[in-house]
This record gives sequence, structure tokens and C-alpha cells, in this order.
Amino acid sequence: MNPVRIIERKRDGEANSREEIQFVVDAAAGSGGMGEAQLAAWCMAVVLKGMSLDETAVLTQAIAASGETVNLSGLPKPWVDKHSTGGVGDKTTLVLLPMLAACGLTCVKMSGRGLGKTGGTIDKLESVPGFRTALSLEEMITQAREIGIALTSQTPRLTPADGTLYALRDVTGTVRSIPLIASSVLSKKIAGGADIISIDLKCGSGAFMESLPEAKELAATMIGVGQRLGLKLGIEITEMDQPLGRCVGNRLEVIEAAEVLQGAPGRLRELCLELARTALEMAGMDGGVATRALDSGAALSKAEQWFAVQGASVGLTEIAGLPGATCVHEVVAPATGWVERIDAGTVGEAAVDLGAGRRSKSDIVDPLVGIEVLAHVGDTVSVGDPIFRVHSANDFVPDLSAALSISSTPLAPLPLVLARMSV
Amino acid sequence: MNPVRIIERKRDGEANSREEIQFVVDAAAGSGGMGEAQLAAWCMAVVLKGMSLDETAVLTQAIAASGETVNLSGLPKPWVDKHSTGGVGDKTTLVLLPMLAACGLTCVKMSGRGLGKTGGTIDKLESVPGFRTALSLEEMITQAREIGIALTSQTPRLTPADGTLYALRDVTGTVRSIPLIASSVLSKKIAGGADIISIDLKCGSGAFMESLPEAKELAATMIGVGQRLGLKLGIEITEMDQPLGRCVGNRLEVIEAAEVLQGAPGRLRELCLELARTALEMAGMDGGVATRALDSGAALSKAEQWFAVQGASVGLTEIAGLPGATCVHEVVAPATGWVERIDAGTVGEAAVDLGAGRRSKSDIVDPLVGIEVLAHVGDTVSVGDPIFRVHSANDFVPDLSAALSISSTPLAPLPLVLARMSV
Repeated sequence: MNPVRIIERKRDGEANSREEIQFVVDAAAGSGGMGEAQLAAWCMAVVLKGMSLDETAVLTQAIAASGETVNLSGLPKPWVDKHSTGGVGDKTTLVLLPMLAACGLTCVKMSGRGLGKTGGTIDKLESVPGFRTALSLEEMITQAREIGIALTSQTPRLTPADGTLYALRDVTGTVRSIPLIASSVLSKKIAGGADIISIDLKCGSGAFMESLPEAKELAATMIGVGQRLGLKLGIEITEMDQPLGRCVGNRLEVIEAAEVLQGAPGRLRELCLELARTALEMAGMDGGVATRALDSGAALSKAEQWFAVQGASVGLTEIAGLPGATCVHEVVAPATGWVERIDAGTVGEAAVDLGAGRRSKSDIVDPLVGIEVLAHVGDTVSVGDPIFRVHSANDFVPDLSAALSISSTPLAPLPLVLARMSV
Repeated sequence: MNPVRIIERKRDGEANSREEIQFVVDAAAGSGGMGEAQLAAWCMAVVLKGMSLDETAVLTQAIAASGETVNLSGLPKPWVDKHSTGGVGDKTTLVLLPMLAACGLTCVKMSGRGLGKTGGTIDKLESVPGFRTALSLEEMITQAREIGIALTSQTPRLTPADGTLYALRDVTGTVRSIPLIASSVLSKKIAGGADIISIDLKCGSGAFMESLPEAKELAATMIGVGQRLGLKLGIEITEMDQPLGRCVGNRLEVIEAAEVLQGAPGRLRELCLELARTALEMAGMDGGVATRALDSGAALSKAEQWFAVQGASVGLTEIAGLPGATCVHEVVAPATGWVERIDAGTVGEAAVDLGAGRRSKSDIVDPLVGIEVLAHVGDTVSVGDPIFRVHSANDFVPDLSAALSISSTPLAPLPLVLARMSV
């Protein structure tokens, strides 16, 4: 196999064969057949020339098989894995997993850390005193068998080819490729052993996919790969122009998730119910049981059990009572009217500036800082009403004025779900 | 300077700024600002998204300045550098340099080795017993002052950024980029100190540029860069669908060059006269003196002096009398008619198979093997006439049948020069 020919073929817009794609993935997993410069050139050719669904499916399968795979076959079916493409204030996993587990599904999930404006579930859970985010694969399976739910940080034992390619893409301007994103996401889900894959594809200024056509293209690619590989895949494209729910920042988001598990209303609750209904229906169950699991307190009990088993030294509902960030500042509405825009991207960047997220992988996250967003698009506000409550470690208050627009005419709330696709 | 932003800008089809291009070139010259994977991704983005003439001129100048530069200012003007983009049987340099030196120009040139189907001047000269191809820059200048002509192999002291980029492009499928080719060629000429640059841009199956539109695009790019950098640049796009002249193979080509210097007629002589006239006219001289330099024997004398000064232990006209390859086979015409095609690419590949060239940089070249091409397009041949004379180290005779077509109707010879451009 000639690595230069593989790159040239993609450069010239041709399809790479199954054997060529396998060669690339083997190289990314350490075979030595291609060096990093060759992999980077190939990735750039893929960014600019694309890949067919057939190629993307082959790539996905090859990455999934590049390391160990998790065998969940001893656990009660169906095994659900939930993935979000990342947003600002996206703490859905913390609510959805206990809801689904309370409904009898087995939830096994590997999560990542945040980078840039989008947060990561592992960072959020690490803001809980004692919570252990690094389970071994064996511990993960045992825990899922015992309580129906287990979440751990990603391990290089799974999909090592994805690890190499992702690190390389991050520094070579080759992240923005729909086939590469789709194969990276789905390969990890396949290697993770899931039976049902639920994907929350965020779309808007606070997400990786900023426009609906782009998000739909990614969804369609994932669906096409899912068809080719026989996956049970549900995708919801959801709104991420404004932050999701009230809180942005690691421990603040855990507190908000606990509130929703205790019955608090709002967009976060509605999104979790929506995602849960879809997953339950894919499992052949009645979607309505999701609401009952939430309203009966079964989901909260499951979440408390989960947190305790993974080492949390404080009860889920007690976290709100722990000391928070040193300084709290309020930013108020400059006018009376209807909220036209609360820009998720700007709020996410401001949260990173506060220390809630990372600019580079080696940055240390402050678990306590963040921003509460007290209004959403369509809400009426009066001049002087608090709009943002900034939780800061010092006197620094990021400039949030650019994040907010107030209209003098009424506006409808933003739709929660922009599109649905499944296979 | 953020290297990922530099790559992304080019990926998105934007122009890179002067500072960004300088950063890339500094990295290629060893500054450490970008790794090889980042350089490779940037090169692929350039291949697929292009560069403006302004960007290409900045790149050319930055590469030229990335190492030492040759100062010829103590030598009699004008200083001419001649470059061929590479072809099959292209021994023009061996005739042209002594012609121009005999006319009073100072010819200083750095040449490369062959790779693939196109030969390299250094390999041809190394087939001459004793010829020293590795002069120091100081020796080169001294020799040029004394006899008006000096040729040496490329040194990493000049344009180190080109060395890195070329090696990287060679393995990452990023050779085929007109801005990258143009900047690579011209940067070396600028660093080499030339006053007048004569470029023989080969076009056809035996050349890197196989089609005339492609060749014209490369020529126009070089002219545009030349205008921006104030170069005196003459480009002739010349025919390379059939091998140039009679011989393909290192020592065979030296022998043919000696024949032309001794007055032999044919396409090689005509091309050398054409290129010499252009260079002389760029120097403000009468182009007609080239023919007189050749016909008077002045060019031959200059070539003999040159070879002797660079260490040749055999006189130029005596090389033909040395023992050649062990086996000589003739391949004859399968039909009577007019030669329609003698494919330079196929002949070039066959010569590599015989050992006259390299598949990879570490291959060893056999100086004696090669192929004589005894007919050209438009010639009449009779069945059984020798068309190829294969000089081989053993019984191996490459299959040349695919290289030859004979027509039953008359055909005109191919034009020698396809286009001319200068600035």
C-alpha cells in the first residue's frame, strides 16, 4: 500500500478503498505505515474533498475496531449511550441518564472534558466532592449491572486511532469535516458497546455546528453511516443559540440538574423529556414513562444512587448548600422589552474567561465559577432586572453586553428541537 | 502567531498575510513554530485552494531568504542561471552553459539529481570519470570568475526551507501545486544570485506538466512572481511528448551533448540555440552569436575547459570511446509508415527500469545504461528499422512496444517550442 497514492486519490476527489482507509486507521493506531504529516495531509484532503457515506462507514468501523471494544452482553438490554455534540450549559446527561436507568434501560457512557466554549460532563462531575470519573472498563460494566448506570472518562484503550486523529486534527485546522466528525463520534459509541445511540446534535452560536444546514448535513451523514453499519441511532438537532437552562459552569450545572430531577420546570426539563422519549421509543417502550420517572422521584433516587456509588461524598440535593464562588455580581437589563438574543457563544467564552473552561488542554478548571442566565429569548424584562449572575473567583466580571439584545416588540421563545432523524 | 489559524485561513480559501507566510517558511527552516503535520496540512490546503500571485511572490522571497544567498557581484555581468523543469533525455544544460559562457555570459548553476522518469544533470555529469559535482559555494564563484562557468549540486546552505517543504511534499501528495512549484524553482534561482533566469518549462508525457494549459498556468505564475520581485525571467514551454534528442541515460546523454557541441544537427541543437538566443537577448546581446559560438567550436572549447577544471579525467570528445553497457539490443519498427508517437513517459520509465534513474532517493544509478531513440515523430520508418537501441547491464530489455505508434499517413514533426513568456 503506497501512502502517497492514498493521499493523492483523496486530494483528487476520488474515493479511498476499504483497504486504503484501513491502512490510514492502522497508521493512526500506531502501525507506522503513515507518519503524522501524511495523516495530516490526508485529513486536510478529506476536509476539502469530502468522503462518501460508504467511505465514512468504513472509516467509522475501522476506528471502532482500532482498540478494545466493550462487551455489554451480560447486562440487561437495551444498552443506551447518549452523546451531545457539545453546547453551553449542556448538563443534559446528568438528568437523562438517571431518567432512562429509572425506566429500566442500562446506561453506559464515556464522556470527555470541555475544550473552548463548550463544557464537558467529566468536568461537571469532578466539581462534586469525591466523585470518581475514572472507572476501569471492568468497574464500569460491574456498576452498570448493579445499578443500571455508569459513566467514566474516555480511555485510550478504546478507539486509539480516534485519539491520534483527533489530537492531530486539533492542531492542523482539520476539525471541520463532517465525515471526520461523524466517524469520530460514532466509532466511540460502537466501541463502547451501545445498542441504542441517542445523539443530541446542538446547533447555534454556542455549538460546533452553527447553522441548521450544517447540522442537518452532519445528522444525515451519521444516519447514512448508521444504516450501513446496522446501528439503532436517534438524532435530535436542538437549539444552542442561547445557553441551555439557567446555569453555565461546572458545579452550577450539577446544581441545576439536581433541581430538574427534583421537579423544576423549564427548557432543560423539556429537552431531557424529549430525548428520553426518543430513546425509550427506540427501545420499543412507551415514551411516556420518562415523565413519570421524573415526576415520581424515581429518576432522582437513581441519580442519588449513581452519585453515591461513584464516590460522591455529598448528597446530590445537598450540593447547592456547599460554599460557592467568592464573588457574585449581577448584570442587569439595560432596557425594558422582550429578550431577542442571549448569545450562547459569547456566554460560553465569558465562562471560559472566568475559569470554568479551558483554552488549552493543560488549563485547570475552577469548579465553582460560572454564569447564571436568568432570562431566555421571548421573556419580558424590565430595565434593571438581573439578566446574568456572574460567579467569579475575584473581582473580574466579563463583558456580557454583547451577548444580550432586547427588543421593543414581542418575540416567541426559540423552538427546542429543530429537527429529528433516526434509523 | 497561531499556526492553526494560518492553516484554517488557507483551508477556507482566504489569503495568508505576509507575516503568516513568513511564519510558515521560518517553521520550514527550523524555527519550530509549526510541526511537520501542520506544514503538511497547510501544503494540502495550498494544493486545493491555491495562492494568489502576491502570496506566491511573498512565499518565493521568504524561501529565497531562508538560508545563505550567493553573492555574484564580483563576477562579470550578466550572470545567467538556466533551469529545466525536467524531462526525458533533457541534456540541454550540458550544451547551453558552454554556449552562453563562450558568448561572454557568466553561467552559475546548481543542479539536482533525477527522481522518477525525469533525469538530473548531476547524475549525467557524475557518469564522466573524475567529474566533481560538489563544489563549495566559494569554489563555485572562483571557478565562474576564472572560466565563466560553474555547476554544482544543490547545497542545504541555500533555501533550507525549500529542502524541508520539498521533502515533506514528496511524501504527502502535495507536489502538484503551481504556487508551490513556482516558489520552489524561483526561490532557488534568487538565492543562487542569478541576474538572468532562463526557464525551460517542459510539457508533455515525459514532463511534470503534461498538458499545455497546466504548463501555461505555471509559466504565468512564474512571470507574475517575477514581475513582483523584479526578476529578469525568460520562459519557453517546450515539447516533451517524445524524448529530447537521441539519448536517454546518463553517459549516453553526455556523449550526445558532446556531439551537438561538435556540430551535430537535430532537435537538441535547435532547442539549445533557441534557449541561448532568448538568454542573450535578455542580456541585451545579439541572439545570433549563439550559432557562431556553436559552429566556430568556441562552445566546445569552453565545455572542454569546464569539464577539465571540474576534474574530468577524460576529454569530452573521448567519452564516446569508453566502454559502455554490457548488452545492446535493438527494438525494430513493427510496420512501415510515419512515426506518430514515441512516448517520452514510457521511455523514461523504461530507462528507470534499466537502472538509469531512481524510484526512490536512495537508489543507485547505473551511469552506462539507457535507451537510444532513433526516430522522432514525423520520421518515415520501414518495418524492421531499428527504433530503440537499449543499453543494458544484463539481458533485461524493457517492453517499449507501448511507447511507439506508426501511422500509415504522413505526420508533421512536433513543434519544438509551444509558447514563450518573459518579463
